[in-house]
Amino acid sequence: MANIITISREFGSGGRELGKRLADVLGYDYYDKEIITEISKKYQLDEEFVEKTLNKQVWKTIPLNYGRTISYFNTMHTSHMNLLIEEKQILEKIASSNRDCVIVGRNADVLLEKYNPFSIFVCADMESKVQRCVERMSSEEKKTIKAIEQEIKAIDKSRAKTRELICDNKCGDRKDYNLIINTTGWNLKELSQTIAPVIIKWFESK
Amino acid sequence: MANIITISREFGSGGRELGKRLADVLGYDYYDKEIITEISKKYQLDEEFVEKTLNKQVWKTIPLNYGRTISYFNTMHTSHMNLLIEEKQILEKIASSNRDCVIVGRNADVLLEKYNPFSIFVCADMESKVQRCVERMSSEEKKTIKAIEQEIKAIDKSRAKTRELICDNKCGDRKDYNLIINTTGWNLKELSQTIAPVIIKWFESK
Repeated sequence: MANIITISREFGSGGRELGKRLADVLGYDYYDKEIITEISKKYQLDEEFVEKTLNKQVWKTIPLNYGRTISYFNTMHTSHMNLLIEEKQILEKIASSNRDCVIVGRNADVLLEKYNPFSIFVCADMESKVQRCVERMSSEEKKTIKAIEQEIKAIDKSRAKTRELICDNKCGDRKDYNLIINTTGWNLKELSQTIAPVIIKWFESK
Repeated sequence: MANIITISREFGSGGRELGKRLADVLGYDYYDKEIITEISKKYQLDEEFVEKTLNKQVWKTIPLNYGRTISYFNTMHTSHMNLLIEEKQILEKIASSNRDCVIVGRNADVLLEKYNPFSIFVCADMESKVQRCVERMSSEEKKTIKAIEQEIKAIDKSRAKTRELICDNKCGDRKDYNLIINTTGWNLKELSQTIAPVIIKWFESK
């Protein structure tokens, strides 16, 4: 069986970067947006629409310019649950391909439980999450610190709701993960290099 | 400033063994029962009494054979809070001695916050916690699995209550720790060897 690392995270905690860096250090495949892209292509849906639907943010955000998408949405009866099922099938395909990989988000730790992944939850204190968001904002974006904090909380809440749809477990509950890493104060490159041997040792001992 | 590693843990998760092994691997001093011993000597109190008082288990457990201890208890006005203050002073003495160390329990992560310790919380699933307790039982002890589970929950509850006395933070809340390690499935010797470089890298980057 392939080695699968799943990464769940708080928004802004650097979970995605850590996942990418871990994949690079270990020479593993990396999946994140690729899963959304595959669903979008299959159903000819807008990627942003798929992403938001999977994160349960769609009901408050469907704008007029999603006209074509909504048409597809209606005719194909592509509901939130349907997309989640599709997502699970893609995750299954990835897991059964027998290639070592890192999967960020998508509740892969729960959906791929039978593959016994090494599951990591990444968190950070609010100050460093805001800092990371500010660093990644384009020069045109103008958001206050308070607005960024609210966005972080809202996204995490959406993710938690999606998780509750899939399983009874609360997002970030320590019993669900092999490791919870607080990235506050870490250089993520150094962290990935130093954490990688821990994960390898765990896989070796299985 | 010395490198301080604090370890909080669920009862039966192997946190103490991990702490001891980490101290061995890193060549750090190790403190656990030593803190209780120092308080007991200073006040000429029974070690078990001090331990239980600090864990808030004393009110339901004071038996007649603690007569001498109760005498001391009364005359010296040694209350739960007084013992906690004493504990804090001993922790301060350890931290300011400028020697690298591992401290297990005692809410050292909160009480020594200003020393910026690397704080670890150790957990495990109930099955492996029970298994660890069974392995450590003497041949005369006869407890059912259910009784052991209840004991684990009761001890963790007591520890959580003591933590609430000291700070507003909940025991095991991810925001309070640098790392939460689930020891389920780990060989603790291997885990300590592989985690030690992560901690060293963190101290080096400070």
